[in-house]
Amino acid sequence: MTTVGNPGSTTAEYERAPSRFTDRITADGRDGWPAEAGRYRLVVSRACPWASRALVVRRLLGLEDAISLAVVDPLQDERSWRFTLDPDGRDPVLGIAFLGEAYAARDPGHDGGISVPALVDVPSGRLVTNDYAQITLDLATEWTALHREGAPDLYPEPLRDEIDEVAEDVHRNLNNGVYLAGFAKSQRAYERAYRNLFACWDRLSERLSTRRYLVGDTITEADVRLFTTLVRFDAVYHGHFKCNRNKLAEDPVLWAYARDLFQTPGFGDTVDFDHIKRHYYRVHTDINPTQVVPLGPDASGWSAPHHREELGGRPFGDGTPPGPPAAEEVPPRGRAGAPGA
Amino acid sequence: MTTVGNPGSTTAEYERAPSRFTDRITADGRDGWPAEAGRYRLVVSRACPWASRALVVRRLLGLEDAISLAVVDPLQDERSWRFTLDPDGRDPVLGIAFLGEAYAARDPGHDGGISVPALVDVPSGRLVTNDYAQITLDLATEWTALHREGAPDLYPEPLRDEIDEVAEDVHRNLNNGVYLAGFAKSQRAYERAYRNLFACWDRLSERLSTRRYLVGDTITEADVRLFTTLVRFDAVYHGHFKCNRNKLAEDPVLWAYARDLFQTPGFGDTVDFDHIKRHYYRVHTDINPTQVVPLGPDASGWSAPHHREELGGRPFGDGTPPGPPAAEEVPPRGRAGAPGA
Repeated sequence: MTTVGNPGSTTAEYERAPSRFTDRITADGRDGWPAEAGRYRLVVSRACPWASRALVVRRLLGLEDAISLAVVDPLQDERSWRFTLDPDGRDPVLGIAFLGEAYAARDPGHDGGISVPALVDVPSGRLVTNDYAQITLDLATEWTALHREGAPDLYPEPLRDEIDEVAEDVHRNLNNGVYLAGFAKSQRAYERAYRNLFACWDRLSERLSTRRYLVGDTITEADVRLFTTLVRFDAVYHGHFKCNRNKLAEDPVLWAYARDLFQTPGFGDTVDFDHIKRHYYRVHTDINPTQVVPLGPDASGWSAPHHREELGGRPFGDGTPPGPPAAEEVPPRGRAGAPGA
Repeated sequence: MTTVGNPGSTTAEYERAPSRFTDRITADGRDGWPAEAGRYRLVVSRACPWASRALVVRRLLGLEDAISLAVVDPLQDERSWRFTLDPDGRDPVLGIAFLGEAYAARDPGHDGGISVPALVDVPSGRLVTNDYAQITLDLATEWTALHREGAPDLYPEPLRDEIDEVAEDVHRNLNNGVYLAGFAKSQRAYERAYRNLFACWDRLSERLSTRRYLVGDTITEADVRLFTTLVRFDAVYHGHFKCNRNKLAEDPVLWAYARDLFQTPGFGDTVDFDHIKRHYYRVHTDINPTQVVPLGPDASGWSAPHHREELGGRPFGDGTPPGPPAAEEVPPRGRAGAPGA
């Protein structure tokens, strides 16, 4: 979930607001929202790491035909996320100009943050959920009837405890840790976040030095969650958020791991470095008042050989990789092998 | 020269104010300032790349006994550079609390910037020169009678045209280019500076791939000028100034070249990474409003083997390296081999 800044906080440490709408879309429809092809629209920003989890999982599971996609402008204005990339500035399916309209349709009194990812009920135009952590788990486990043939099991029963444990460390110290460092209002809060972040980094680098994926020998939810932070690391977190002990590109293990995933269908083909950089550097005027967007880093290395096959592993288990993305969903400047820099 | 920001400029491109006081201290004393042991005090900030040239050259030439040294606090206040590192906040030799007092003693009407390096006449307390570009050339050519035995010739007659030519490229695109990028008030001005910077970077990397030093086969003024920018590159320019195509540590040629110089007596022993980082990140509130100082990068690599000896070269020509610095002049956290990170 991406909300802007942390205006209400009086502490020096950044706090992330909890997701407000936590209805679940399930196979049995127990919250009133059954998994159903064509009914829901996934609204994301390609800039946002929390939303990008859903982008990747939707691709890996082949849910593109079942759940349509709306991509917002990477720059929010005072009304938050906008459909200014679409003709006439309106989402062609929902017919709205601002994602906030779907929030208002759900709760006219809502005055909290407007965040992505959001799943919106197309018939009613109402937001169903912005619960980024649950959305991908439900795509993996509640939408199985609509998965493509050969879809992987991203949250296999026997590995869930281990996935949850790793994901908790990754969330606290990396996914959210980069924000704790970047939005810190005191030297002390920053240093705490930085030290926790790189302690976690070293644990992961060690873990991944002998195994291809975080849990088991296939791609799981844990890898998706780590990937969306790593792919932004050198482009924004290293400089803009001062997470600068080292670049990702300076860690042989994690850099190869990240490239391996980037080059796997469903990961790199969702990434738009232009959206990522413009969002962070232009929206966070409290830490980058000039709004200048850096030209670097050189991103050509993302397509370099990673040699992670030598560790074994079966990326999709008994399944198969997804096919290429639909032409209209390929990020203009984020194609794998030629990422924009 | 370091002045704060560029408040008077109305363009989007940063402009550096020219040095105001350009008297020269010479062997024949033609400007009224003869080179003379014990008469002048060199005032520097260890944060400042322009001042650090003089620090390095003074060490290489063994002028420490002839020209005493004052080190200011890396953080200016509204009265500019301060002697707050000294007992009672006063320079023990000049007896002043602010460098500006020496400027005022020279010109009571001076209302321009207060910059380092500054050479101050101790008997009168008056500033002689803040002309950073000329100071080091004069130390090399006008102070020869006071050089140590074995001092190198940093500005040899037959190579001056080539040194000047290389130094002009380095000045325009690197020494000053990092400031043009970092202080740019428009995307366009930033991008122009970035592209010029890395075009120059590539020229230098190519040039230094087959030769140990920039001009001739010994250390010259040209190397000193490049070093003071390179040693700050990963610590501040890469992130804070958005010069982020690559880190110095990612360029095998320039990184080895910079380490070679860093490990040469007279270079690394003048460097204080703590002063460097605190100055840039805390003084430039217009580009780092939180004033948080990054903990990275890991600087341990500066002491790694560089293997540049394989290119030949004679660092000090027919001369010898300087001895170790006086104990009272070793930066507390900037010792070669254990730079602060």
